Amino acid sequence: MNSPVTNLQPTFTPRPVPVALLEALKTRFGVQFSSAQAVREQHGRDESAFTVPPPQAVVFAQSTQDVSDVVKLAAQYQVPVIAFGVGSSLEGHLLAVQGGISLDVSRMNQVLAIDADDLTVTVQPGVTRTALNVAVKSTGLFFPIDPGADASLGGMAATRASGTNAVRYGTMRENVLALEVVTASGEVIRTGTRAKKSSAGYDLTRLLVGSEGTLGIITAVTVKLYPLPEAVMAATVSFDNLSDAVQTTMTIIQLGVPIARCELLDATTVRLVNVHSKLTLPEAALLLMEFHGSPAGVQEQVATVQTIAADNHGHAFAWASTPEQRTRLWTARHNAYFAGLQSRPGCKAITTDACVPISSLADAVLASVDEARMSGIPYFMVGHVGDGNFHMGYLIDPDQPEERERAEALNQKLVRRALELGGTCTGEHGVGLHKMGFLLEETGAGGVAMMRAIKHALDPHNILNPGKIFAID
Amino acid sequence: MNSPVTNLQPTFTPRPVPVALLEALKTRFGVQFSSAQAVREQHGRDESAFTVPPPQAVVFAQSTQDVSDVVKLAAQYQVPVIAFGVGSSLEGHLLAVQGGISLDVSRMNQVLAIDADDLTVTVQPGVTRTALNVAVKSTGLFFPIDPGADASLGGMAATRASGTNAVRYGTMRENVLALEVVTASGEVIRTGTRAKKSSAGYDLTRLLVGSEGTLGIITAVTVKLYPLPEAVMAATVSFDNLSDAVQTTMTIIQLGVPIARCELLDATTVRLVNVHSKLTLPEAALLLMEFHGSPAGVQEQVATVQTIAADNHGHAFAWASTPEQRTRLWTARHNAYFAGLQSRPGCKAITTDACVPISSLADAVLASVDEARMSGIPYFMVGHVGDGNFHMGYLIDPDQPEERERAEALNQKLVRRALELGGTCTGEHGVGLHKMGFLLEETGAGGVAMMRAIKHALDPHNILNPGKIFAID
Repeated sequence: MNSPVTNLQPTFTPRPVPVALLEALKTRFGVQFSSAQAVREQHGRDESAFTVPPPQAVVFAQSTQDVSDVVKLAAQYQVPVIAFGVGSSLEGHLLAVQGGISLDVSRMNQVLAIDADDLTVTVQPGVTRTALNVAVKSTGLFFPIDPGADASLGGMAATRASGTNAVRYGTMRENVLALEVVTASGEVIRTGTRAKKSSAGYDLTRLLVGSEGTLGIITAVTVKLYPLPEAVMAATVSFDNLSDAVQTTMTIIQLGVPIARCELLDATTVRLVNVHSKLTLPEAALLLMEFHGSPAGVQEQVATVQTIAADNHGHAFAWASTPEQRTRLWTARHNAYFAGLQSRPGCKAITTDACVPISSLADAVLASVDEARMSGIPYFMVGHVGDGNFHMGYLIDPDQPEERERAEALNQKLVRRALELGGTCTGEHGVGLHKMGFLLEETGAGGVAMMRAIKHALDPHNILNPGKIFAID
Repeated sequence: MNSPVTNLQPTFTPRPVPVALLEALKTRFGVQFSSAQAVREQHGRDESAFTVPPPQAVVFAQSTQDVSDVVKLAAQYQVPVIAFGVGSSLEGHLLAVQGGISLDVSRMNQVLAIDADDLTVTVQPGVTRTALNVAVKSTGLFFPIDPGADASLGGMAATRASGTNAVRYGTMRENVLALEVVTASGEVIRTGTRAKKSSAGYDLTRLLVGSEGTLGIITAVTVKLYPLPEAVMAATVSFDNLSDAVQTTMTIIQLGVPIARCELLDATTVRLVNVHSKLTLPEAALLLMEFHGSPAGVQEQVATVQTIAADNHGHAFAWASTPEQRTRLWTARHNAYFAGLQSRPGCKAITTDACVPISSLADAVLASVDEARMSGIPYFMVGHVGDGNFHMGYLIDPDQPEERERAEALNQKLVRRALELGGTCTGEHGVGLHKMGFLLEETGAGGVAMMRAIKHALDPHNILNPGKIFAID
């Protein structure tokens, strides 16, 4: 299985978009409809390094009815519809590889119901994670899932996103309770309830979470909230050897320490982050951790982790217990991607994301970082290592096709190694265009055939974000 | 929507089972094949109050290949195949309402791989939860999910089971990482990996978990394990009013206390349990709780809960800190179902199970217990109330059809109320035959149509446990 499994340039196979459809959308949506070049281009790209021509038109939905009406018209003409939130996906999810209509739901940004006594909240899909936390602030509750970007809840559900808090609070898989979805025929259905658990039939909620807009368009999301922890402490600890930092992580998880965040940056990435965020972290491998709980519980966790880190030659322990100190550290961590981009002006980042069983974390991370170093391609490496999940970004000159090929070769080695170690080709970014070949390697033809059968059953004319996750033919 | 939604007697519409199929199975499986009346009857019932004629034959599978071969033969003749573990399901899941072959996987009882360093274990579907915990005991890890019966892991995955530990550790939904499954064509596929999280395509694992044997037959299950907590303490507290016990639970959850188990029994049920398990618990509403964590963490949780309970007029606090005391209490709790059956010799239990958002727990539980009391039908009530989940069992004389009708009327009131409160018709027992009408009420025609489309796509001849969850026509 050494054939290339990522396309350096996706195939563009546009389907006809009849003028009658564009006219019908324009009539129905007025100023919510746009075919202006700039608007189309903004909706025709994401944070991936792929480029294809933009969608033919954009509709800005303001209600579930709007979404339903767009899909019904698109279904009538068998034209693709691609849901768009904030455009922060990383693997080409939003690209109009078969042409069609971009359905922008960012104006559907209302918080529909805060049920604080049930620890749940229901939002429209365009609400971002930051806006959600502002909206629930007065309840003493919070929503923990935090991908690097200030992504929309609809997009986060569609890609099964997670972030730095997943090691304790889970991903969108564990935190979405219910959805409202427009199906490929334009029908509005509801999946799940606000009950914490259920055995009522097929788990449509979790089938739709992570389906990348290919099985339905999410128009409302109900997620869990959590009480703000009584005590929070963040800590950094440095290691001269990357392997010691990884070993520390593995031991923390295997001992069952209920750590809330456990992030790894290698020395190279710490240097980029220091420059971008004006910090003075020691330029060595860094674990950036956070502990949530009661005051005594946090102290216990910290003591345990400090012992484990010291056993593994950790040094330069530093504590951040004020909200301001913590925010500064975590903002710097969330901006690692931008720190990477800034470090090489004009570059593009080819990002990748894999997740392995925790005992294989050292094998996966150390070899991948070594290969990146040896390649001479600038890179950054950050990891939600408490989950066995890590990312690399290869910072290429887009005008040098040879750099791109080398970066993709590094990506292939990294992902194939993760699969060999019993892991997955993507922990949280999704498949999009970039990981389609790897999904086939990971799941096998039988699993992908099952996905394809489900897709065909629920979207027989293949109008919902076609050309993503797996090939239809 | 006041039409009856549960059938007092399921429709029996057998499909032809050609002699050629039975001969082929007998030739292929020899002594693993049985058409003896006693064996068929044992495989034709579960713990529900339903009766239909038994399957035409039983095959005892010993390998994935065996399962695949049975399904391939059944597919060739378009004959139903019903997977069978230990026969402990409660809602008619195992009944051969369309005839066919029972595929008993209980002899597939090998633990395939204990990956202690990854906190995972992979087992064949016939391994029971008790056997699993014996197998992993030396690792210092445990598997927390504990339905009342000593169910098989395959059955637990198929019904999305949970139990008393779910409030802290989640259900099978959160704890199954990967599956090996035989599809309706007899093909063997794998879903998921041992990585803790993944965004790699459709979540086939969670689609199959809870699909009640209708989309594929599970031949291996990989689940998460957890480090045995450093400290464990169990506690009981009694309340003169059921409502005070429920209010205590709601406050514990809303404050985010990381309680491991939080079970409610009403005074009537405590009396039954005392008799059955020779205990002397005060005959009042009882919360039976367990706390896991560090010694200091457990002490903190206990102190918080004690304060909350005292604020709600709790009394007769008792602590069980030795393993023997705890085992005695939890065994008594797990045997509540049998305590109920024993209390009325010759009775059958019509059980039901609903789950509501936590703030509606009082509304759901108090009215349902009142209705049962007023009805004159003997009953028991137990609840995984930390999850908003509770069960009732109506203990009817099977020779009195009128009692059964009254019990079903109570069940309908209970479930409809749970749905009105934003809950689900089943928290953990599944739909089977008994909740098919309620699933339609809960999910709506659109959601059930989506389930039906998936079923048709993955099992076009409707051979996998047909007639369950929803009607096909």
